[in-house]
Amino acid sequence: MKAIRIGLLGCGTVGGGVVQLLHANASEIAARVGAPLEIAMVAVRDVAKTRATALDRARVVTDPWLLMNDDAKIDVIVETMGGLDPTAALLERALERGPVVTANKMLLATHGAKLLERAKASGHELAFEGAVGGGIPIIRVLREALVGDTVESLRGIVNGTCNFILTKMSAGGGASFDAVLAEAQALGYAEAEPSLDIDGHDAAQKLAILALLAFGAHVDASKIPTEGIRNVAPIDHQFAARFGFAIKHLAVGRNRGSEVELRVHPSLVHRDATLANVNGVLNAIAIEGRALGPCLLSGRGAGANPTAVSVLGDIVDVARSLVQLPKGTAPRALRWKDTPIAKVDASDSRYYLRFQVFDRPGVLAKITGALGDARVSIEQMVQQGGGDASGAPVQVVLMTHAAKESAIERALASIASADFVAQPTRVIRVEEA
Amino acid sequence: MKAIRIGLLGCGTVGGGVVQLLHANASEIAARVGAPLEIAMVAVRDVAKTRATALDRARVVTDPWLLMNDDAKIDVIVETMGGLDPTAALLERALERGPVVTANKMLLATHGAKLLERAKASGHELAFEGAVGGGIPIIRVLREALVGDTVESLRGIVNGTCNFILTKMSAGGGASFDAVLAEAQALGYAEAEPSLDIDGHDAAQKLAILALLAFGAHVDASKIPTEGIRNVAPIDHQFAARFGFAIKHLAVGRNRGSEVELRVHPSLVHRDATLANVNGVLNAIAIEGRALGPCLLSGRGAGANPTAVSVLGDIVDVARSLVQLPKGTAPRALRWKDTPIAKVDASDSRYYLRFQVFDRPGVLAKITGALGDARVSIEQMVQQGGGDASGAPVQVVLMTHAAKESAIERALASIASADFVAQPTRVIRVEEA
Repeated sequence: MKAIRIGLLGCGTVGGGVVQLLHANASEIAARVGAPLEIAMVAVRDVAKTRATALDRARVVTDPWLLMNDDAKIDVIVETMGGLDPTAALLERALERGPVVTANKMLLATHGAKLLERAKASGHELAFEGAVGGGIPIIRVLREALVGDTVESLRGIVNGTCNFILTKMSAGGGASFDAVLAEAQALGYAEAEPSLDIDGHDAAQKLAILALLAFGAHVDASKIPTEGIRNVAPIDHQFAARFGFAIKHLAVGRNRGSEVELRVHPSLVHRDATLANVNGVLNAIAIEGRALGPCLLSGRGAGANPTAVSVLGDIVDVARSLVQLPKGTAPRALRWKDTPIAKVDASDSRYYLRFQVFDRPGVLAKITGALGDARVSIEQMVQQGGGDASGAPVQVVLMTHAAKESAIERALASIASADFVAQPTRVIRVEEA
Repeated sequence: MKAIRIGLLGCGTVGGGVVQLLHANASEIAARVGAPLEIAMVAVRDVAKTRATALDRARVVTDPWLLMNDDAKIDVIVETMGGLDPTAALLERALERGPVVTANKMLLATHGAKLLERAKASGHELAFEGAVGGGIPIIRVLREALVGDTVESLRGIVNGTCNFILTKMSAGGGASFDAVLAEAQALGYAEAEPSLDIDGHDAAQKLAILALLAFGAHVDASKIPTEGIRNVAPIDHQFAARFGFAIKHLAVGRNRGSEVELRVHPSLVHRDATLANVNGVLNAIAIEGRALGPCLLSGRGAGANPTAVSVLGDIVDVARSLVQLPKGTAPRALRWKDTPIAKVDASDSRYYLRFQVFDRPGVLAKITGALGDARVSIEQMVQQGGGDASGAPVQVVLMTHAAKESAIERALASIASADFVAQPTRVIRVEEA
């Protein structure tokens, strides 16, 4: 039987993992596809660096455009090179010729709608399970398992670096953010330049892709209200635990019909909630279907092997379609429209507020007064420190009842410039399970 | 475009849910399938009981065999009637004519291999996402997402009745098993005749289906070592919590090459493990892929709506294949072989042992001596009660280091007949996360 010829753009850790898994499971995969799969051509930056073993029969080139030539006879393009340039242009061209599999989250968050339009126009499939949640099959579940249902909301721990750092900080010992970040970097869980992860941009890109699939909502990822984890201090973990919560960095989405609520920020999650117990570099995505109810998927959100499993699952899908479907069959429908992101006030939350103030008479009255003026009511309050002559700031920590973010902001603004305020107030939303 | 004609066997809660979801999402589903879906014929026990609204255009009959007639022109048979007889015979016949979707766990556990053989022989698809884990898309993930990987092990909370009862009992208050079972029955979470659930047989049937998909292992579900939750007492939850564990009823499977390790029993799970925090009627299945690493799916394991979502996902899959694939295309490969179940000694575990003994001099020495003779070493020990004149039994609770079950049994056998033993010893395995 004629082999399906795969062209691989990039052969780093994920690409190399795909090649290895493909070899290790060749007969099983051939049975599923109805034809053997063959890595026919690989484009890499440095031919000398490419491990020759698994690629013995593949043509290794440095010019990725060679894979787009008709005489290369590539059936499926698999992109694991990353980046936006020239990747976006390459995949646009590739989609004119045939199906494409990619694990490139940034590319999809930035050019996803354009690439999906291109795929629809040419009648070729664009598959991207590896782009969100590494080894977690969330894309497949959203596209296929939930086709007869409506996804109402989703909440995810989608950045392993953030989750590792928050887990380590909450485990006690009071290690600072900087110390734990350094440890994560030493372990390879954080980049030397960690901003993309710890400032929440990576999570926002993944949320944009999830919103496209879950809600059919196309948004600009850079417009999603996004906050990272730099400002979560060890003392916040201690207070959160005292109130019965864990602090998790969440990507939250909610379908509001004509709008979509999307936000990325640290959140207090009740310690008995499943998401509160997803620890270390693990990721998890919880969805709420109208008929399905709650459904949670968790696993390794990154890493060569888990991502390679997802990429290979996609390759098998599109290759099977190539072998079995008559020419000209349209790819699986995916419908979306440009959707505005709802204002942050769209939903009420409880809030955790940590004031850092000098211990003077009347301070508590001013704080509670400002909250009362903004119609924010207080559920519980704890004060730590004070009563000595050191003059060090005291911590006043409040849990509010459900309130709008604008009300919280109004209250904080009226306090911010008071002379008893030692440091800016820390604000963390409570995400109800 | 010509509609795909669906024949529905049974129209109770799950079947009714499928009909409703199909109506509510008709245009989305038609776009995905490439043709509209139509409920053409419904077989029910009592025509008068059938809600007429959603079935206005369907022919409602009481003889299910009418759906198998050629002149009924049914494209897809959907079975939600349950039971083995006449369901097994009906589906064997149905698979000669076309694809079949079923949510019948008992049928698959009992006749699954025969039905899958029949499906392979006739070239028609047999889909059964709804049969395991209700709304959890575990079948899809095992069949499709993991095609390029090897599943090494799985652990699941697959019975909502057991999980509800254990969760309620562990929540404190010391409610007895019988009291919580009565509450579960009042809430509709347990049957009037609860044995199938609480004695573990339902979980064993689901485990047999999971083993077929995850390991390609065909086993007789009735041969799986199975233990229910009747013997878990409130005091066991208290001691487990004291040692840092929750008690969960688990179905455990491990791929051992020529054999498969399968067992169903209550287990101690570390309280920080995700499975320990899957509570109430929720189910969860954790798999460990060689390349993928850990992956967990959780959600509602039963109930009309979640199961209907899964059934409808299957209907869309097989209908899309009918519309798009050329006639005669073989269904997706699924390979399995008859596989022996490994002896329970195949893997070591830590054990929780609760001795109920009369408080006499030398009792502890005899217990620890018997364990020592069997080469079981003790990690920690707690004694509760004793030291008074009441003569009531005392509780001696031990956590062992890893040991073989046969060694534990040898030690317990040598103690069982001693005159200081007040009640049989409770034994619960520790399942390491």
